[in-house]
Amino acid sequence: MKENKQLLLRKRPLGLPKQDTWKLVKTEIPKPNDGEFLVECEFVSLDPAMRGWINAGRSSYIPPVELNDVMRAGGVGKIIESNHENFKVGEYVYGQTGIQQYIVTDGNGWHKVDPTLAPLPMYLGTLGMPGMTAYFGILEVGELKEGDAVLVSGAAGAVGSVVGQIAKIKNCKVIGIAGGADKCKYIVDELGFDGAIDYKSDNVASKLKEYFPKGIDVYFDNVGGDILDLALSRLAMHARIVICGAISQYNNTTPIKGPSNYLSLLVNRGTMRGMVVFDYAKDYQKAAIQMGQWMMQGKLKSKEDVYEGIENFHETFLRLFSGDKKGKLVLKVSEN
Amino acid sequence: MKENKQLLLRKRPLGLPKQDTWKLVKTEIPKPNDGEFLVECEFVSLDPAMRGWINAGRSSYIPPVELNDVMRAGGVGKIIESNHENFKVGEYVYGQTGIQQYIVTDGNGWHKVDPTLAPLPMYLGTLGMPGMTAYFGILEVGELKEGDAVLVSGAAGAVGSVVGQIAKIKNCKVIGIAGGADKCKYIVDELGFDGAIDYKSDNVASKLKEYFPKGIDVYFDNVGGDILDLALSRLAMHARIVICGAISQYNNTTPIKGPSNYLSLLVNRGTMRGMVVFDYAKDYQKAAIQMGQWMMQGKLKSKEDVYEGIENFHETFLRLFSGDKKGKLVLKVSEN
Repeated sequence: MKENKQLLLRKRPLGLPKQDTWKLVKTEIPKPNDGEFLVECEFVSLDPAMRGWINAGRSSYIPPVELNDVMRAGGVGKIIESNHENFKVGEYVYGQTGIQQYIVTDGNGWHKVDPTLAPLPMYLGTLGMPGMTAYFGILEVGELKEGDAVLVSGAAGAVGSVVGQIAKIKNCKVIGIAGGADKCKYIVDELGFDGAIDYKSDNVASKLKEYFPKGIDVYFDNVGGDILDLALSRLAMHARIVICGAISQYNNTTPIKGPSNYLSLLVNRGTMRGMVVFDYAKDYQKAAIQMGQWMMQGKLKSKEDVYEGIENFHETFLRLFSGDKKGKLVLKVSEN
Repeated sequence: MKENKQLLLRKRPLGLPKQDTWKLVKTEIPKPNDGEFLVECEFVSLDPAMRGWINAGRSSYIPPVELNDVMRAGGVGKIIESNHENFKVGEYVYGQTGIQQYIVTDGNGWHKVDPTLAPLPMYLGTLGMPGMTAYFGILEVGELKEGDAVLVSGAAGAVGSVVGQIAKIKNCKVIGIAGGADKCKYIVDELGFDGAIDYKSDNVASKLKEYFPKGIDVYFDNVGGDILDLALSRLAMHARIVICGAISQYNNTTPIKGPSNYLSLLVNRGTMRGMVVFDYAKDYQKAAIQMGQWMMQGKLKSKEDVYEGIENFHETFLRLFSGDKKGKLVLKVSEN
């Protein structure tokens, strides 16, 4: 019989995770009881938020992953055994698979996905949590209005790339911040952004001045740190800042850098608001339908960057922080 | 003939203003032309925001005071000469008097006040800009709801004391942060706050934990700095932070300390929003009527701390930053 490779959280890292943060183990494939089913996990989602989940204490919006537990992650897979009346063998599902090859679940919090409508990895990206985060973040939290001047950081990433495209669909001016000439070219040439700022080589402050002569109406922040501060210094009146993440700060070994220019919120009557996508779960369906339509109309492009092998989890995960990936980062964990 | 003593901005201070930031000069009392009137200024308002107005550049929400101009300030006084059809000799008015004893104006932006309804200094406090700031800040920007757990910093000050009392009127739990046992006693015993934290002697973090076991719903921030950070670390879900000021930071000679714990906004889906009271000008009248009613019902108390003599402007102004005053700080500049 085959085995189940599982990736456990072995140590809480200080700073960037190291190889020994994790431990790969082999266990027996579990058996589903009554009302349960067995999923063969195919693709798992690698996201910046996972870094927060492995800190001790209340540093995130859900409890931390316990030591020696399977690392938490969303994933898609195929049902290969079922004692559950609503989930049949052969169906594909999305759920909290964790970083492992097989999981037994009672289906709570899981939903079916259709591999004939879109490739499976897309259900981890534009049609999954990152896409939902982008959709509700820019439209509801950011209160996007037609004609707004919009800045997005992490613009070539799973969330940022969708944020920018939605803002273009809504007739806004959209500038993205990304790392490297290649990603900057990608967001302008392929995704239709109005401009790009390469934070690795451009003077971000002077580029912001050039691109936003009348100030930024909405800043969608995935990175925090210095870029948040520079954006604060260019706000338009009644600007909205969506705090979605702070990837520049997640591996800090020193305290997080707070935005020194936050008093710009006072001067400009601005709003800075945090969001967690799970709050919008009741409207996921509506958003997925809308985004699916935009994709079919060619207005919204989805890009997944898929790596293979649960053994390569660590190196692949680090690409989130080195920036060495484009679009949604996905790991294929099944061996078929 | 009498002379007009005027306080000019002589130098832009680095850090706390010094005696030579200002220069007191004596000039002739100006004459009103057609459509103008002459005001004898009686009381001028001393506010933390004035510190921002004397910095160079766009560090505030209105242009800086120019060097050698009369220092900007709101004030109340009596009309002693008039060529204006709507403003008569003997009437009392509020307007941007500046720090001086006499001013000629065409009345734009000025309004009449009634010294028989409330003492003149109160029109600089609870019935003036600080009161309006408190009213719109806590009710509109803070979106106060019945039963909210509310924290106010600068709680014994002109704005904070009104914020806390309004929140009590709205059946909220209100804790104030102030400096010194005397002020803490004042806000609890005289103003009816549910509790006080003395930032000079208490462990603010542990007091916040004790007073807010379920977290802070609304934090009204007048001070910034470390206290803002501590409040961020105790937010309840969907908390609102009103950024009204940052008095702890106004005299910094180093960059402003940004709130390191701002990612608590993400975890708790919180909102941090800046405000400037002038945006609510069209509704001042409504607010003044409501606050007047509360005062007559004994639900809202107003306290003004009045010092005398334009010559004492500098020492009196510094009380804003040393905390050595209670309620609204007012300077009497007339010599009658």
